[in-house]
Amino acid sequence: MNLSPAIDELVDALRCLPGVGPKSAQRMALQILERNKAGGERLSRALSSALASVGHCASCRTLTEEKLCRLCASSNRDSSLCCVVESPADIFAIEQAGSYRGRYFVLMGHLSPIDGIGPEQLGLENLFTRVEQGEIRELIIACNPTVEGDATAYYIADSLEDENVIVTRIAHGVPVGGELEYVDSGTLSHAFAGRKPMMER
Amino acid sequence: MNLSPAIDELVDALRCLPGVGPKSAQRMALQILERNKAGGERLSRALSSALASVGHCASCRTLTEEKLCRLCASSNRDSSLCCVVESPADIFAIEQAGSYRGRYFVLMGHLSPIDGIGPEQLGLENLFTRVEQGEIRELIIACNPTVEGDATAYYIADSLEDENVIVTRIAHGVPVGGELEYVDSGTLSHAFAGRKPMMER
Repeated sequence: MNLSPAIDELVDALRCLPGVGPKSAQRMALQILERNKAGGERLSRALSSALASVGHCASCRTLTEEKLCRLCASSNRDSSLCCVVESPADIFAIEQAGSYRGRYFVLMGHLSPIDGIGPEQLGLENLFTRVEQGEIRELIIACNPTVEGDATAYYIADSLEDENVIVTRIAHGVPVGGELEYVDSGTLSHAFAGRKPMMER
Repeated sequence: MNLSPAIDELVDALRCLPGVGPKSAQRMALQILERNKAGGERLSRALSSALASVGHCASCRTLTEEKLCRLCASSNRDSSLCCVVESPADIFAIEQAGSYRGRYFVLMGHLSPIDGIGPEQLGLENLFTRVEQGEIRELIIACNPTVEGDATAYYIADSLEDENVIVTRIAHGVPVGGELEYVDSGTLSHAFAGRKPMMER
């Protein structure tokens, strides 16, 4: 069923958004056209301006429209700490937690030879150069605990073995507030392998 | 946490879409900027072109960028039947069912004095004029079975009492494929009240 070419095109275009199927796209299109024209105009402008201006930070590779992102430009962050993440969304999550005060390096993906994503695509040369220059005391790897994330983490740790840098990886285990009963077995194995003494003897 | 003004503005603007909260808006923005710039460009263009061109059909009031919508312009539809619906999305649903071959009239809402929506805002004068001109043999009211939809349906039926037109309302009852056990009591009352003999005697 198609009512009019302009509406159909809008419904189709909305499906580029993640998690939006044909039914929600139709609902979104009608909602904008019937009730929220101002919101639609604003969205159209915000999209085209972000697409035109947003590129990658020269230092950490995250998305930004400046040369350096806000976090790399800030003088309040500890430059000797660098956290390696897969995507800008991971930075949002870590910043929301609020306990980390160092810098970031965003891979914009993970090693995936099958998709043609090797170390160059992840900008690892940049990262290694920074480590060689002695800027970074500790490199905290926060790749996702997936097969590809693990491979990427080990590749980075391996490549830096001879450098004067501490390479660590964030802990994997039972989430805070989680119940053991509902935790999957992979996470439980990690939690047991990563157990720590509760008091120093 | 805000990374850059252009991205923040895009995340904010995406929240005008129904069902999109802060977390999904952020995911959508990053997905477009990281992986689907072409889709984003297309969405921006589709939005601004639909917002500029789409208005209301001169005959049935649905959304369209033409003077008359596809269904009103078609010569294959039965002009003596007219189905009154609340929104263009209802037309999509009825057309998908595929059994109705008449025309439509879209109220773009329902009577709601508290929000200042009276008969004029729903364009009911147009509808009544068309009925008076004798174009329509049967008016099928398919307003939603809500308090406001019911009020709108009764208002239309009342206003046309003295006209030479059959006013009907679509049946409300147990949905096909539904199980009685899970049907709410309002629907069940409607289903009992609307029971029909299974064979003519």
